[in-house]
Amino acid sequence: MKSDVEISQEAKMAPITTITDQLGINYDDLEQYGKYKTKVNFTPSDAHQDGKLILVTSINPTAAGEGKTTVTIGLGDAFTELHKNVVLALREPSLGPVMGMKGGATGGGYAQVVPMEDINLHFTGDFDALTEAHNTLAALIDNHIQHGNQLNIDPRQIVWKRVLDVNDRELRQVVIGLGGRTSGVPRQDGFDITVASELMAILCLATSLQDLKHRISKILIGYTYDRKPVYVSDLHVEGALTLLLKDAIKPNLVQTLEHTPAFIHGGPFANIAHGCNSILATKAALTYGDYAITEAGFGSDLGAEKFMDIVTPRLNKTPDCVVVVATVRALKLNGGADKKTLNVENLDALKKGVINLKRHVDGMQQYGKPVIVAINKFASDSMEELTYLSNYVQNDLKVTGEIINSWAEGGKGAVDLAQKVIAACNNSDKFHELYDHENSSVLEKMTAIVTRIYGGSTVELSRKAKNELKRIEKMGYGNLPVCMAKTQYSFTDNAKELGAPENFTIHVSDLQLKLGAGFIVALTGKILTMPGLPSHPAALDMDIDENGRITGLF
Amino acid sequence: MKSDVEISQEAKMAPITTITDQLGINYDDLEQYGKYKTKVNFTPSDAHQDGKLILVTSINPTAAGEGKTTVTIGLGDAFTELHKNVVLALREPSLGPVMGMKGGATGGGYAQVVPMEDINLHFTGDFDALTEAHNTLAALIDNHIQHGNQLNIDPRQIVWKRVLDVNDRELRQVVIGLGGRTSGVPRQDGFDITVASELMAILCLATSLQDLKHRISKILIGYTYDRKPVYVSDLHVEGALTLLLKDAIKPNLVQTLEHTPAFIHGGPFANIAHGCNSILATKAALTYGDYAITEAGFGSDLGAEKFMDIVTPRLNKTPDCVVVVATVRALKLNGGADKKTLNVENLDALKKGVINLKRHVDGMQQYGKPVIVAINKFASDSMEELTYLSNYVQNDLKVTGEIINSWAEGGKGAVDLAQKVIAACNNSDKFHELYDHENSSVLEKMTAIVTRIYGGSTVELSRKAKNELKRIEKMGYGNLPVCMAKTQYSFTDNAKELGAPENFTIHVSDLQLKLGAGFIVALTGKILTMPGLPSHPAALDMDIDENGRITGLF
Repeated sequence: MKSDVEISQEAKMAPITTITDQLGINYDDLEQYGKYKTKVNFTPSDAHQDGKLILVTSINPTAAGEGKTTVTIGLGDAFTELHKNVVLALREPSLGPVMGMKGGATGGGYAQVVPMEDINLHFTGDFDALTEAHNTLAALIDNHIQHGNQLNIDPRQIVWKRVLDVNDRELRQVVIGLGGRTSGVPRQDGFDITVASELMAILCLATSLQDLKHRISKILIGYTYDRKPVYVSDLHVEGALTLLLKDAIKPNLVQTLEHTPAFIHGGPFANIAHGCNSILATKAALTYGDYAITEAGFGSDLGAEKFMDIVTPRLNKTPDCVVVVATVRALKLNGGADKKTLNVENLDALKKGVINLKRHVDGMQQYGKPVIVAINKFASDSMEELTYLSNYVQNDLKVTGEIINSWAEGGKGAVDLAQKVIAACNNSDKFHELYDHENSSVLEKMTAIVTRIYGGSTVELSRKAKNELKRIEKMGYGNLPVCMAKTQYSFTDNAKELGAPENFTIHVSDLQLKLGAGFIVALTGKILTMPGLPSHPAALDMDIDENGRITGLF
Repeated sequence: MKSDVEISQEAKMAPITTITDQLGINYDDLEQYGKYKTKVNFTPSDAHQDGKLILVTSINPTAAGEGKTTVTIGLGDAFTELHKNVVLALREPSLGPVMGMKGGATGGGYAQVVPMEDINLHFTGDFDALTEAHNTLAALIDNHIQHGNQLNIDPRQIVWKRVLDVNDRELRQVVIGLGGRTSGVPRQDGFDITVASELMAILCLATSLQDLKHRISKILIGYTYDRKPVYVSDLHVEGALTLLLKDAIKPNLVQTLEHTPAFIHGGPFANIAHGCNSILATKAALTYGDYAITEAGFGSDLGAEKFMDIVTPRLNKTPDCVVVVATVRALKLNGGADKKTLNVENLDALKKGVINLKRHVDGMQQYGKPVIVAINKFASDSMEELTYLSNYVQNDLKVTGEIINSWAEGGKGAVDLAQKVIAACNNSDKFHELYDHENSSVLEKMTAIVTRIYGGSTVELSRKAKNELKRIEKMGYGNLPVCMAKTQYSFTDNAKELGAPENFTIHVSDLQLKLGAGFIVALTGKILTMPGLPSHPAALDMDIDENGRITGLF
């Protein structure tokens, strides 16, 4: 059986200009990165984004993921098989996890975006530019303090940390500025992973270079000794930071193994950030495609909720159909099976675990749009398990379901699903907002998410979070949407509570004001914004030979 | 008067494929980054690198630099004017200083490589890839310790720091791994600027992907509790790190304003590292051009010495001619003029300062190759000053000299110099090694550099350096060349000692074993491997408008 990277390296790709010609993108608007990747100079216009929008999400995943990207790509290729003009809008992989865990963000098997070995590594440098811009701002803040601190910034109240696109637990909590008078001011600091940077969220929400600069200027970087907020605009460096992102803001276009066009742009994690690819890329997909298929990170409780509540108002478009990806494996895990035995048939665990799927479907139905379940087939699934799950979807959930086998079969393995998605898009209903965006309080918004999406009962704020909420409301930002930072493994804030727990409380430990992104991050449970590497990192098995042949990259 | 970035943004560039067609580079070997930048898949062959090699270096610079890159580019354009097939081989700019000080590394005025706004920012992502690979290794080391430390690595003896391409003094000395058992092991650490990374030196010295991997495997990362060395190969991650650099190793090709081809690849600083662009790029220039012009960082005491003693044995080629760039301004500074009055005529200071030029010329003549002085004209130079300097070069130094005015005139301003360089290349003599590479000791090598290039008298090692030297010799690495880390402002290790001091001692505070690069770094004086930002960083004046028009980037 071929590895993902072998399939990618053997693929017969079309020159990217063949893809852009098909889409009618002007050659002058391209900035190619090699022969198979290009940035596109794209100016969005709401008047032209008339494609149908399909959002792919999932149940609570296992550590290995549920193949949501594989399903998204396979579904796109099925649209291509059906001669539909479809464009994907996906997230860029983060390099940190690539070096840590097996399993990429570029699909798998015969449903991949290619060249995966480039997309998974530095791609077109967007994350590097974000890292550089983020850390340049950090250096400029400390440099301001070093040179007299005219703004009176309190080094104990700086909220702008540093970032790296590396899974490096060693940098979570650090003390910097040691070494005496010429080497800065000693203070406590920390590093997040780049995908958690507010600049990543900003890049994904900005609709133009001008909007990007405006959002950057609004970033809250800390407080003065007398507790007044300090913004990037106070430092006068929004121009320089925007300059560093002048190419990163342009959506990247590649293709699938079956030559379906795919924009891949931006990639905040959905557990610690808002979890959706860039608005510019999604707008481009809606403009150039009759159908745009996008995905949101982790389960529907995370990425999809944020897509609905944070992204759609800025996108000026809501999904015409929502696809929830489920797997027998993950449902068995949610039903109590040991994670080491997920390859073994276990109908009991599956029967217990389907309540997890039910809650995801219920949650997505809150928004009033058609919901379809895609059962992503794994080789280890038994016929009985797949049959049981199909029947459950049809008879108990009473929604459309379809088994998909794109990992093995590419687009062909998703044609039936594609036909049902097309039918659903043609019967799409009115979008319902989860909460009143104008008039509800921060607590009301969190409560709506917890009760109506997670199925919990209450929200509890720590003393620190309560104080921060008071400050936020006093500063006049109580009307912003909330971006929940929560484990992807559970509806609760405890990664071990699988299935569909009832009557639980979500514990908010802290609130963070992200004024450039335009939302408030609520940190729940023990969420980490800088991951670590496992005891046997994937990096140990990677290699490249003298001819450039790669092994061990999934 | 137009700014550098205005000139660049208004330039009529040729499509990069026009340039590669002229050079006979196969289209299949290109990986374009937009329409005006490309990476070149280049496999070097010593048999084909038959171009003449010209090395451009300089006197001790002012803080603003002496326009060495401007001269190099102007000289290249003059060769083009003379219908010679010339290819430049330059270093990539580091982003850290771009945000700090005015003055880029892409030339200036009408002698620039373009698009300068891209080259000065992220270019093709090489430095980002180096940063990522460097920090991935750091994370893997700490992760190894976290997960049981099978190799018995002593956290107090790790010599692999972290890096960022940001001027960030706050990160020079840090404590990492705080936060308890799940967040690493607390220890002292520090960040260098990316150009100081051993990976940068390795990238610039590697001759193939295989050589790159082999060098990476040899990197010394620290010592065990019982003082045994630990290498990258012990961690088994040379494959993953090479994979991260698979594109960075490919030379980048751009053009000057006058369409002269220019490879720009790699860029270690010459004060804290070896200061020369990549061997692959220089080999490519020697292969595709009849003349290859390269430059080495800072004064001839730094970059050029390292080019001669570290690079040429690995390049299998020595320069046919050396061009020393001098300016009236810098010589006046070296003659005691106040740096604020360098625009004012001051023949007295100039007459005192020319001894700095003399020592650089003397040093370069040690290698037996023709030396030519290029007097880089500034608008503020008086006729009397320029005449005095020209006469001094001709009558006192008895070497060929020529005034060059490429900043204002491009290639036309350097045609006379170009003709003299061509003549010199045709009369090039045998290369003399500065020291016996096989048989001299580390101390003998340092002494040769200090006495014959710097004009000093002795080398003094600190107690720490002496201990390190003992360890290095005991480990069997006493035969490696030495890479001096020294201030660029003085022949001595004290930045304030200008001119041409006599009878001085160079103080070596520490030695660092760079086994992947294959040299020993000797830290002298108070050299910093992580710069800081000034009180008014250049970033504060940069901007980009909604049409992408850039201001404030030089």
